[in-house]
This record gives sequence, C-alpha cells and structure tokens, in this order.
Amino acid sequence: MVGAERAAFNGGASFKPERPDVYGAAHPKDLLRAIEEEHDHLLSLANSHIVSSAQFSRRLLLQLFRLAAKFEANPDRFTTPVKPLSDKLLISAFYEPSTRTRLSFESAWHRLGGDIMSITDRQSTGIAKGESLSDVAEMFNNYGDCVVLRDSGVNSVTEMMETLRIPIINAGNGVDEHPTQALADLYTILKWQPDLTKDDTDKKIRIAIVGVPNRMRTVRSFLIMLARFSNIVDEVVVVHDGKSDPLYAPDQKESLVKDGLNIRETTKLHSILPEMDVVYINSIAWVKNDFEVMGNDFALDINSPFKKDAIILHPLARGEELCTSLDNSVHNWYFAQARGAVFIRMALLTCMVQRTEMVMDVI
Amino acid sequence: MVGAERAAFNGGASFKPERPDVYGAAHPKDLLRAIEEEHDHLLSLANSHIVSSAQFSRRLLLQLFRLAAKFEANPDRFTTPVKPLSDKLLISAFYEPSTRTRLSFESAWHRLGGDIMSITDRQSTGIAKGESLSDVAEMFNNYGDCVVLRDSGVNSVTEMMETLRIPIINAGNGVDEHPTQALADLYTILKWQPDLTKDDTDKKIRIAIVGVPNRMRTVRSFLIMLARFSNIVDEVVVVHDGKSDPLYAPDQKESLVKDGLNIRETTKLHSILPEMDVVYINSIAWVKNDFEVMGNDFALDINSPFKKDAIILHPLARGEELCTSLDNSVHNWYFAQARGAVFIRMALLTCMVQRTEMVMDVI
Amino acid sequence: MVGAERAAFNGGASFKPERPDVYGAAHPKDLLRAIEEEHDHLLSLANSHIVSSAQFSRRLLLQLFRLAAKFEANPDRFTTPVKPLSDKLLISAFYEPSTRTRLSFESAWHRLGGDIMSITDRQSTGIAKGESLSDVAEMFNNYGDCVVLRDSGVNSVTEMMETLRIPIINAGNGVDEHPTQALADLYTILKWQPDLTKDDTDKKIRIAIVGVPNRMRTVRSFLIMLARFSNIVDEVVVVHDGKSDPLYAPDQKESLVKDGLNIRETTKLHSILPEMDVVYINSIAWVKNDFEVMGNDFALDINSPFKKDAIILHPLARGEELCTSLDNSVHNWYFAQARGAVFIRMALLTCMVQRTEMVMDVI
Repeated sequence: MVGAERAAFNGGASFKPERPDVYGAAHPKDLLRAIEEEHDHLLSLANSHIVSSAQFSRRLLLQLFRLAAKFEANPDRFTTPVKPLSDKLLISAFYEPSTRTRLSFESAWHRLGGDIMSITDRQSTGIAKGESLSDVAEMFNNYGDCVVLRDSGVNSVTEMMETLRIPIINAGNGVDEHPTQALADLYTILKWQPDLTKDDTDKKIRIAIVGVPNRMRTVRSFLIMLARFSNIVDEVVVVHDGKSDPLYAPDQKESLVKDGLNIRETTKLHSILPEMDVVYINSIAWVKNDFEVMGNDFALDINSPFKKDAIILHPLARGEELCTSLDNSVHNWYFAQARGAVFIRMALLTCMVQRTEMVMDVI
Repeated sequence: MVGAERAAFNGGASFKPERPDVYGAAHPKDLLRAIEEEHDHLLSLANSHIVSSAQFSRRLLLQLFRLAAKFEANPDRFTTPVKPLSDKLLISAFYEPSTRTRLSFESAWHRLGGDIMSITDRQSTGIAKGESLSDVAEMFNNYGDCVVLRDSGVNSVTEMMETLRIPIINAGNGVDEHPTQALADLYTILKWQPDLTKDDTDKKIRIAIVGVPNRMRTVRSFLIMLARFSNIVDEVVVVHDGKSDPLYAPDQKESLVKDGLNIRETTKLHSILPEMDVVYINSIAWVKNDFEVMGNDFALDINSPFKKDAIILHPLARGEELCTSLDNSVHNWYFAQARGAVFIRMALLTCMVQRTEMVMDVI
Repeated sequence: MVGAERAAFNGGASFKPERPDVYGAAHPKDLLRAIEEEHDHLLSLANSHIVSSAQFSRRLLLQLFRLAAKFEANPDRFTTPVKPLSDKLLISAFYEPSTRTRLSFESAWHRLGGDIMSITDRQSTGIAKGESLSDVAEMFNNYGDCVVLRDSGVNSVTEMMETLRIPIINAGNGVDEHPTQALADLYTILKWQPDLTKDDTDKKIRIAIVGVPNRMRTVRSFLIMLARFSNIVDEVVVVHDGKSDPLYAPDQKESLVKDGLNIRETTKLHSILPEMDVVYINSIAWVKNDFEVMGNDFALDINSPFKKDAIILHPLARGEELCTSLDNSVHNWYFAQARGAVFIRMALLTCMVQRTEMVMDVI
C-alpha cells in the first residue's frame, strides 16, 4: 500500500536523491588519501584575516584541501555530540547582495554548528550609511566571533581591519579579490586529479581562462593561488576579445610569471580548446556598484571542441557563455565546484576561529 | 514587596499569558484521540516535493492532522534531548515577500531544532536576477536539506524541481496553489469537530466560500483538499460579486464535482449565511507581481446573520472584509487557524526530511 | 616553521585579540562585587513588556546591572550544558532599519542559546503593509516567545500590546523612547564607578548632555532612568544650540525635577566641560521615517577641555560631533558602552522569558 500510495502521492513530484559520481564521496576520499595531515599549517590561520589569495602558501593550501575533503567525504562526521563551531557566532555582512556566496558561507557555518546574524543589503543598515566601516567593525567586535564581508569597495576589508579584533574574510571586495572562490576553484582541480598534489608529480595541465584578469576578482584570485602550484601548470592561456584594455592590472602578469606561471594570451578560443585540460570561464566583471558582462563572443556548449577529459570551471551564476547542454556531460565540474565551495569554507572557518583541534585525526 | 513592585513595574505593560480556549490543548487532544496512528502513510512523504493539494490522499491527510495535533497538544514534548530536525538546514526562499507565511514556516522549523537560511526578497539576490531557477535550485542542493519557496511565478516550483535533489514546498506560486495553507484550513475544521474524521460519520457541514476560485490560490488549494472529505460536505456555496469572470478556471469546477463536492454559487451572502457551518473568506487575489482586492461588496461583522455555532476561516492578512468586532466572538477560528498552521507545517516538514520515526508513538 | 609561516601568512592581515582594559573583565567584576544578589526583583520582569525607562525601579536596575556584569565578567559561563534561552525563539522586528541595535539584541539572544527570526525592513513584509500592528502581534503570538520591535511610530509598541501574549521590548519607537539604550548608558556609568551603586555613597557626579530631550529618544530614556539614581547626580547640564524649540516636551523637565534631578541648560559646551564627569553626546533626532542631525555647533575632540578622568558616552552611530581622535583616549567609554549593551540585553531577555533561575548564584 505504501508503495502504491507513494507513487500516487508523488504525482510527478518525486526526485532521485542519488547524485552523479562527481558529487559523491569517491573524489574527496582520493584527495584525502593523497595528502598527509600536517595540522601545524592550519594553526597559522587562527585569528587571521583572509584578504587575498596571496596569503596562502602551498603547504597551507594542501592542508585546507585535505580538511575540506574530509568534510566532503563524510558530511555527517562532525555533527555529534559537540559540533566544531558550537557557541560561535558569525556576522554575515553582504552589503553587496549575493545569495549564492552568502548561502554558501552560511551553510558551511551552520553545518559546523554555529549561529549566524545576516546583513543582506546596504539599505537595511539605516543610518549606518553615513558610518565609517571602521566604526561598524568596532561594533562587530562586540557582536560575533567572525565576519564574512562582501562589499563593492576595494578598501572595505582593510578599513574594517583597522579596528577589528575578530577575524574577517574577504568574500569579494569590488574588482579586487575573492580568495575563497579561488580556494574552491583549486580544490576542484585537485579533487579531479589528486595526484597533482604530490611534490614529485611529473604531470602538468594546461588551463584556459576565458576572462579579464584586470577586471574580474575571481580570475585575479584564482591566478594568484594557481601560481602556488606552478609546478603542475604547463601553461595558462588567457582568452580575451581584444576589447578589454588593459587586460592586466599593472604588474599583475609580471608577478604571476615571477611566481612561475607560464602565461600567454589569445583571442581564438576554439583553436586552443582541444589542448586544454581545464577551461575556466566567467563573464561577470564588477564595476563599482554594478557589473558588466564581458566576452560575449565566447560561449561553450556540448559541441565545443573539448579535449576528451577536459573539465570546465565557472564561479557561477552563469549567463549565455556556458550552455546548459554541458550540464550532463563529463566536462561539468562547475556544479562540483559550487558544492565543494561549502566544504572548503567549512575548513577555513574552523581554523580561523581556533577550532582546528576538534576536526583533526591526530593532535 | 515583589508583588507590589511587579504592579508598579508593569505600569500598564502587563498581559495575561493565558489563552482563550480556542488556542488551548483541548481541541488538538480531541483530534489526536479521534485518529488512530498509521505512520506508513507519513513515510510516503519522505523526500517528496509538495506542489499541490492534489497530492494528498484522505488517509495521509488524517495522519498529518494527527501529528500536528500531537505537536499542538504538547508543544514542549519534542524539545529534548535530540530534536527531530537537529542538523537539518532549511532554505526559506521568499522571492515574493511575506512575513506571515515565512515566519510560520521558520517558527515550525526552529521549534523542531533545525537551522535556517532566509531569502526575504528578490532584490537581495543580486545577479541571481538573470539566473535560471533551475540553476538556483542546483545551488540549493549543496546548501540545505529542504526548500520552502514562495514566488509570483506559477512555474517557479516546477522549474526548481528540474534540478532539485532535496525536497521543496510550494508556499504560494502566483495564482496557482498554496497547499500548506489548505492543510491549515482543513486542520482547523477537524479540530473544531474531530468526529468528522470518522469514516462512518453521518455528520455533514455546509461551507460558504467568499472568494474567486479562479484567481485565489488559497481558495483553489482549499477546494481540492476539501474534496478529499466530500463525505462530510453537504454543500459548498461560492459567494461572488458577479464581476469576476470567469469564476472558475477551465475544468476546475468539473474536477471538484467529479471528486464528490456539491457546489453552487450565489451573489447573496446574507441570505445563505444563516445556514452555513463554516464561512471561508478572503479578499486577496494575486495578479503577477501584485495583488488585487476582490469582493469588496462582502464584509462580515458581529451583526452578520451567522448560524449559532458557525466558524469563520480566513487565510489572513485581512482587510475590510473581516471586522475586528468578530475577534472576541465564538465565530473566530481564524486566529486558531493561523496558530494551527505552525503545527501542521511542523508535521509536514518532519516527514519530508525523513525524521518521521522520531515523532511516532509506535514504530 | 609555524611561527615563520604565520608571519608570512598574515602579511599585514594580523590583529591583536587582546582588548584594552576598558573592555576587560576588571570593571564588570568590580560592579558584580559591589551589588548583592536579590533575585526577587528580576522575577518581576517575567512576561512583562518593556516600553519605557519609567518602568524600572532603582532596585531592579541594580539587579539587572549585576546580572549583566556577571555575563560580561565571564562570557563563557553559561554556554554549557544547557543554555539559558535554549528552545526560546525571538522575533526581531526592525521595521525601521538598524543594523547596530538589531545585531546587539540578536547577539545577546544567540549567546544565550536561543533561535531568531528577523524582519529587517518594512518592504519585505509584503501585503502586511496594510495590516494592523495589532493583527501582526496576534500572529507573533503563534510564532515566538519574545518580540523586539523597532518602528518609526510612537504608538507601535502599544498597538502590538493590545493583542500580544508574549513579551515585547521597545527598541526605539519614533521620537519617544529607547529604554534598553538607557540601560546600557547607566550600566556603563556604574561599571566606571561601581561605588556609585552603594545606598550610602557620598559621591556625586556632574553630567553634560549634548542633545535635545524633546526630540531624541535616547536622551529621553536616559534622563528618566538617571532620575532613579538622583542621589549620585550633582547636576545635569543640557547643552543645546538654542535652535531646538522647545527643548523639552511638555512636563518633561518638571517630571525629572520632581524625581530629584537638578537640571540646568547652557549653550556653551566648552565653558562647562572642565567640570563634567560624564559627557553624553548625540546628534541624531528621529522625525517620522527620517532623521535629522542636531547640534552641529558642538563637537568633541582630543583637544576639548575635559576633566582629567571624564568619560564620554554616545549611543552611536556617530557623526562629526565625536572625533575619532578620542578613540584611544581615557575618555572613550562609548565603545565600552556599545559592548555592555549586549550584556545588559542578555540580562533583560533572560528575565523576560522566565529563565532567571538558570543564571542566579543563589535560588
């Protein structure tokens, strides 16, 4: 009876809770096994502000990815009896509205057992409009244990840091950086091929980046972090439409080259696509309080000439540049990337508020 | 001293926490006793989407009402040591703003021990404006365990269902449906007269519906669900002002008649009122992103010619059509209806996220 | 290695979690020791609405300050195993937007283990726009255990009280009152000099108030509460610019004088400053849905002729009237005041929802 009723009940409203392999536990488990636990590196995150991708060493990144993989491989592991962020209070301050990133951070914090106070737009801050960010930060000291800030101003994070005595995470500051997105990007690549984490690996990958390093904070932060793994990068090809001038910020390319990245540019996406292992694409660039769409000329779909096992990354939300025809293909790692962002944020947050010991295997 | 100080302290600021009988434990206890527990029906709700009133069988409805009555009869029963929704995370997505329904769902979820992430309007979703609901739903999969969605679009729920792997509840989709409101409506009627739940009852009630079935989602969903109990309905009288044309959507009345409801229409409220046991009234109809008020000609007050024990239902918020002079009368079951909505949502949510066993008497 | 990496990692992103003495445990501990526990007074708050500073007796205030000091002296004390507000649900209704006060209340509630539902602006309340506050309050009865309300309407709180059966706190009602701000103000003064709490103290302080008692709700509420401690007040000097006419509401000054306050007025801030022990300054006055800035003529900075140990209070957010050059001076007690507001609200909320026994030393 139950079976029959269930069929009748659902009436087109059922779904399969099973997830495709890319979301499963297999990849994070492989990554977890590939990296040896060295929790000293994670302790360096205690009470530190996260402003830029440039703050992270290769060793620290590997340990964060390992912890994220541990969370992802077994999401229920740290739910009882005492959760790692029990009694911790997050201030989720999204002065520049963003449901995607806000919910990703808030989900990470909640899963670890913490409580949250949210600010979802500037309008609801009342007279705070005329208040300095430094004063707002002084107030935050009294209210919570950690701040996640998204704001359209490039200097917002550093202004808050003047008075903060609790750690802050830059969740996107105007055109500048978005380091936790870069963590999610790199985490995805290493989940895809865990052997790339080995110090002595001979493997090298080619990465296309469809976007404007000078204007897109996600691309900026990704490139800086990727340079920490320049040993596994054969080359980075920046694909642009020739209209974004200048393509790089002053010293941006020089700094990446100095850090070991081999970078070139092209305006011909399809001619280089067959040789690329990873294709990173984005079309949103932030301009003050608004955004503009760039690179309309470039679009990926199921008929694009991908290498057989190439993966696509996209920080999402997507526009015309990424066709839904790719969603069910082997190239779709952008959904896994969005999913992984929750776990890498769990790893980072746990370490920042000094609860690292609660999630280590060996102490 | 304390007594004296208390009086001094309160200074006009006191209140009586005692509630009128209609809110008390007596009615839910009677309903609880009237229905035998058959928890198999509730298991059919596990991981199912709730889109329409049409999904619910009579047996399933009775078990949901029983569980709601159990929650309402003893609100503190499931608070310790482990709450039924412990470690569960709700995404409360109200793209069409609504404090009343949002807080009703969130209160239900919190009382069961779950955590919540809220979206309170479309504006705060930033670039998500141009994002497909299917992509938003894919994101939700990674962030929570259940979605409550209110949106002005009729197709919003089904668009999200394309990619969702966690259950969703339709909390109002444009002009279409609002099934959990209908659950609250019917739950109120059965609390009022628990013997109507008996398969072999001879009792029949007459129900007036002041509203437009074609335009009001609450009326639509209520009528569909009421048809599951057509054995206790003598007749339904739809009261309209003759201006709403057509009064029904195509096939709407035919379908209800086929399901056993005896329906007629009138434009004369006061002439039928003396014979009605239940009077359901509403004046809000949704039109795209806005609403219009219908049936201004009809208004109920303490001098309306009600049957002695008739009860009034209203989905609230109310306008001119429901006078506050009725609030202290025996006809006021609309406040009990709003209160009951929290408990019926607790029942539904518990079953949807597979925690039914935690709240059963017998397993 | 860790030390070196930490330095490398931080890269300008470090901070010192140590707090200046004014935030430390020393002052609250002194205040805690100075007041004897008499918890009967706190029991008078159970299920009472908080509308005005006038509701609080001197004895009750002392006990609230004692409990706040207990919370502040040891913030981790009541976090395990069962928190005082476990299973309690707050409705945080800020129809007039305010991040500062909203987060202060929400932080207080969360730290005590309760859950929260937030309303952050009127716009997201949908059709509730046309709903009476009395109906909204009837709805709140079903959803939570306590309401914090900020609204631009002077009568909002009393309208909600018509139907509320759960306690409400006035967190600012237009031009009228803001009693919990006054609690924070007075708590700060008594933390600064705990011996002022003694019934037999000979000490008296002089207080300058730069502001308009007739238009500023913070000043109104502070003066009423200060009158409960008129024995320690030598004089209150209201500093005004002569443009705010009338300076007082009808009977406002007469009532304060009758309660024992010695009040005079001046337009010359700098000539009285050298004799003032406490300088209370504010520049925001509420006018319907907007605010205006008053007293532009007055501004305090590090070169103002303060008495050696004088303290400055400000309800914040600040404007030009309070220079940041004072932030690192001994006069800065306004940050301690903002911090203390969380603990005094913790004390008040605990008592209102009948969890006083859980935080008492002796029962």
